[in-house]
Amino acid sequence: MMNFSKTFEFRAEFFDIDSMGVMWHGNYVKYLEMARCRFLDSINYNYLDMKNDGFAMPIVKMDFKYIHPIFFNDCFSIQIKLLNYESFLTFEYIFFKGNKKLCIAHSSQVAVMIERRETCFVLPQPLVDKINLLKEKYE
Amino acid sequence: MMNFSKTFEFRAEFFDIDSMGVMWHGNYVKYLEMARCRFLDSINYNYLDMKNDGFAMPIVKMDFKYIHPIFFNDCFSIQIKLLNYESFLTFEYIFFKGNKKLCIAHSSQVAVMIERRETCFVLPQPLVDKINLLKEKYE
Amino acid sequence: MMNFSKTFEFRAEFFDIDSMGVMWHGNYVKYLEMARCRFLDSINYNYLDMKNDGFAMPIVKMDFKYIHPIFFNDCFSIQIKLLNYESFLTFEYIFFKGNKKLCIAHSSQVAVMIERRETCFVLPQPLVDKINLLKEKYE
Amino acid sequence: MMNFSKTFEFRAEFFDIDSMGVMWHGNYVKYLEMARCRFLDSINYNYLDMKNDGFAMPIVKMDFKYIHPIFFNDCFSIQIKLLNYESFLTFEYIFFKGNKKLCIAHSSQVAVMIERRETCFVLPQPLVDKINLLKEKYE
Repeated sequence: MMNFSKTFEFRAEFFDIDSMGVMWHGNYVKYLEMARCRFLDSINYNYLDMKNDGFAMPIVKMDFKYIHPIFFNDCFSIQIKLLNYESFLTFEYIFFKGNKKLCIAHSSQVAVMIERRETCFVLPQPLVDKINLLKEKYE
Repeated sequence: MMNFSKTFEFRAEFFDIDSMGVMWHGNYVKYLEMARCRFLDSINYNYLDMKNDGFAMPIVKMDFKYIHPIFFNDCFSIQIKLLNYESFLTFEYIFFKGNKKLCIAHSSQVAVMIERRETCFVLPQPLVDKINLLKEKYE
Repeated sequence: MMNFSKTFEFRAEFFDIDSMGVMWHGNYVKYLEMARCRFLDSINYNYLDMKNDGFAMPIVKMDFKYIHPIFFNDCFSIQIKLLNYESFLTFEYIFFKGNKKLCIAHSSQVAVMIERRETCFVLPQPLVDKINLLKEKYE
Repeated sequence: MMNFSKTFEFRAEFFDIDSMGVMWHGNYVKYLEMARCRFLDSINYNYLDMKNDGFAMPIVKMDFKYIHPIFFNDCFSIQIKLLNYESFLTFEYIFFKGNKKLCIAHSSQVAVMIERRETCFVLPQPLVDKINLLKEKYE
């Protein structure tokens, strides 16, 4: 599969920081979602488009490996890479501060038909089409 | 109006605490909601019942006065008192640690018909009935 | 006092939205803090500078008036205005979507000497100096 | 190693629920921490005791597998099991609603000497002692 990634910039907010002076590990989940939403915006198929097409994409798997802490007011970037879009929509996320890797994470989502609350075996065609469109540009 | 209050116990979690070692002021809002939901559970008319009756109750006003900080693992109580249930459902919340007042807050909600997204001028009758039922017990 | 305000842009994230489809009222507190931190960055005296000078600025009062809801992916701005910087550092916040006012809020902070955990009667001189510097530019 | 587990009860709060009507996947992290803190309380060695002994225990790995959603006001339990306490303190968490498994998660922590910001190769002796004490009771 193609190496398909984008990078977005973020900043650690005061309310992200715990009593040990570093970003609380649970707050990283928010930044995954922000990176994922910006990625989907960039292919013109975000959660609102999905909803209009009748489905949602709940997270079914997620993992994190924390390497270096993030401090208050730190600027960091997330490189988000699409790893898979067959039955699962799977992303890898690498948090960087400069060239230093801070954290590596993954998420996998499935499509669910909203009305029937039924999981789909493959990703919805409109989403696959949008990704293929982008893929073509890269090749 | 009757003095109509209930008290619920809570504990400050690790993720509530900010880098200054005290509960982040924004996290108090969660405890207001927890106290309010337990209060509504206690009168047998919670958000699920409201939804079934076709309305929601968004917060339209909220204020806080912070007096003493809350630390990690602190046990504290919230005394929630119903101040008004005419056009607004208004509560007062006093956070205590023992007899020491930590914080005083207020919230006001209005009823909104979910389907029409229309604000109601008075609170829905089922909610008023439940409150009156409780009021009778007190008198 | 001078009319001293700045405006910052934000976007409602998926995790900000509650089950009624609007931004949960408690999540507005995060955006107040983001606006306040960007304001303090803009006068070159943020929380890190304060900490280096030995003090913190806990919130002692906060209020909100919610007018119109914020939806997923909505772009909105916050106009933050410095109202007072004598004993309290007081800000007003107006949330806008285009010209439409969505929410009005206020926060007041006092200075606390970190080492002695002692509240100061006036704001620390370095902060006052930075604000006066900015004030001169405006006049 | 011994099968060493405890179970704690929780309830899904209004602010945990996202716009799809289910607990937002990122909010599960809070419940992991609540279960872990209650576990450590139960062996009389919580984060405050650790801090007094000069170390902290940051999360270095975390993973989730989401099986069934959690809805507003749902009562659920977390069975937390200590899997390892050599170089890492590793827990497994199973979320249950009745007998139905909702989610399986894991976390791993290392010890860090707070003053030197130095990772320890083994867990601190006071923590190991507390766990062994409990282990003896089980055997």
